[in-house]
Parts: sequence; C-alpha cells; structure tokens
Amino acid sequence: MAKAEVTAEPGKQEIVITRIFNAPRELVFKTFTDAKHLAKWWGQDTATTTIDQLEASDGGKWRFVQTAPDGSEYAFRGVFHSIKAPEQIVQTFEFEGMPGHVLLETMTFESTPDGKTRIIDSSVFQSVADRDGMLQSGMEDGANQSWNRLDALLDTLK
Amino acid sequence: MAKAEVTAEPGKQEIVITRIFNAPRELVFKTFTDAKHLAKWWGQDTATTTIDQLEASDGGKWRFVQTAPDGSEYAFRGVFHSIKAPEQIVQTFEFEGMPGHVLLETMTFESTPDGKTRIIDSSVFQSVADRDGMLQSGMEDGANQSWNRLDALLDTLK
Repeated sequence: MAKAEVTAEPGKQEIVITRIFNAPRELVFKTFTDAKHLAKWWGQDTATTTIDQLEASDGGKWRFVQTAPDGSEYAFRGVFHSIKAPEQIVQTFEFEGMPGHVLLETMTFESTPDGKTRIIDSSVFQSVADRDGMLQSGMEDGANQSWNRLDALLDTLK
Repeated sequence: MAKAEVTAEPGKQEIVITRIFNAPRELVFKTFTDAKHLAKWWGQDTATTTIDQLEASDGGKWRFVQTAPDGSEYAFRGVFHSIKAPEQIVQTFEFEGMPGHVLLETMTFESTPDGKTRIIDSSVFQSVADRDGMLQSGMEDGANQSWNRLDALLDTLK
C-alpha cells in the first residue's frame, strides 16, 4: 500500500503531504466533495466521522465531527476559498478544540501518465509553533490512516 | 503620523504589519467590517475602491474592486474564516489578477493602555516566492497609503 510522503522543513510554517492514489482524478476529487464518500474515509481509524456541514463551493462552510469509541467528540471546521473540480481545493481548517489556530490548506489533484492521481496537500500555519504542534499531534499517522481508508474506498468505487 | 512596522524575515512565508491607531478598538474594528467606511480607506491612494461584496460573518465572502485613474480595474476577493468583533478577523485573500495565489490573513485588534488600538496584521503565503512577490509589488507602500487614509477617516469619526 502506498504511503504518504510528508515534508516539514525545520523552522518553516508549512507541511506538504503527497500521495498517489490508484484511481482517476475525477473520482478521487469526488471523494473530497461528496459527504457520503467523505464520511467513509476522513479522520482517524478508531473514530466515526459525521459530516455536519459541507457546502462544496467557493465561500461554502464545512464542519466534520469525529466521535471516538468512548463517545467524546472532536469537531473541525473551515471555509472553502475556492473549489476547482477536479484540480484544486483551497480551504481554511480549524480544530474547534484549539480555537484561534487556523491554517490554509491547498489540495492539488494531478493526473499521472498511468492514470493514477497524485494529491499534493499543502498546509500553511499562522506560526512555526502551530505547525510543530500539528506534527506532534500525530498528524502523519492520522493522515496515513485516513488516506489508507480512502485507498480502500476508491477500490470499491472504481 | 504613525507608520506601519513591517516584518518579513528572509526565507519565511509570512509578513507581519503592525500599526497603532489613535481611536478606540470598537471604532477601528467597525471600519474593517462596514462597507461605507471600508470604501473610504481601503487600497491605494490613486484609485477608488468599490465594495462589490462584504458579508462580514463567518463563512462570508468579500470582494473589493479598485479603479485606477485610467479606468483599469483590480479586484481582490476572499472569504472570512471568522470574525470576532472587536478582536480578530481571519480571512483568505486573493488578487484576481494572479489567480491561484491565496494567502491567509489574521488581523488582531488590541486596546493599548492609553485608549488607542494596535493592529497586528499577519499574512501567511502558500510559498516563500509568493511572499516575496507580494513584498516586491510595493505592498509596504500600499499598506501605508491605505492606513494613512484610515487614520484620517478615524479622526473624522471620533
């Protein structure tokens, strides 16, 4: 199974995650903007995800809630600056448990010559400390768990 | 007249502009969220600003158009991630003349002990190149022109 490649240079305030998915770009893009698909792959393995809000257009809001096995809830929210299907999503992102820490996420979807899709997911943070905090929160594991499930979902959709 | 203090460390992807305004925080904040006021101070001296869109709430869109003396137009747009009156605005920002280059701007309004307002306007860019491009575009002069006019407007509003 593919693994995400994570780049986070010391002292900078960005994280770039890249991964290739074995599915065409239109389909991969759809799993990011369709609530039915998103609920199946977004977030950590051990939690279930509820799509509280998903207005997939410029200026639209999104809010996803993760429910852990013990019932505790973790909510995330943001707004879409732009959605250009099937190429790019630019959005803000905030964990409601740490209000006031917002990042700008740019997800670019590229077709590879062999019909796969490369996602380049670049996040810029308000500070280096915020960026480092996100890395220390186990974000790399979280992304891999999430994207492994996306991989499996794409297999069923092809 | 006060001058903006601009911080942009080499190799980083942020710009921080700080300036003190001689007016109470509630009033200064209002000049950022009220179209009538914004049109009077936002943008370069030589142009006139039209507020095409200003939905001053979480998830709201904004779009401002600058018209130069020769009639050419320059439009800017973004979405508000959050507006917490009178403390903070977090928004995205894009110059439509360079589509695809988006930044995240966090404007914090602090009351000083002597009743003035300090604005800390922090922008993070998708890349160092984007950040450097903004600096080279004469952004510091632009900010000072804009904020000088805000200073003058505040004098008439107090």
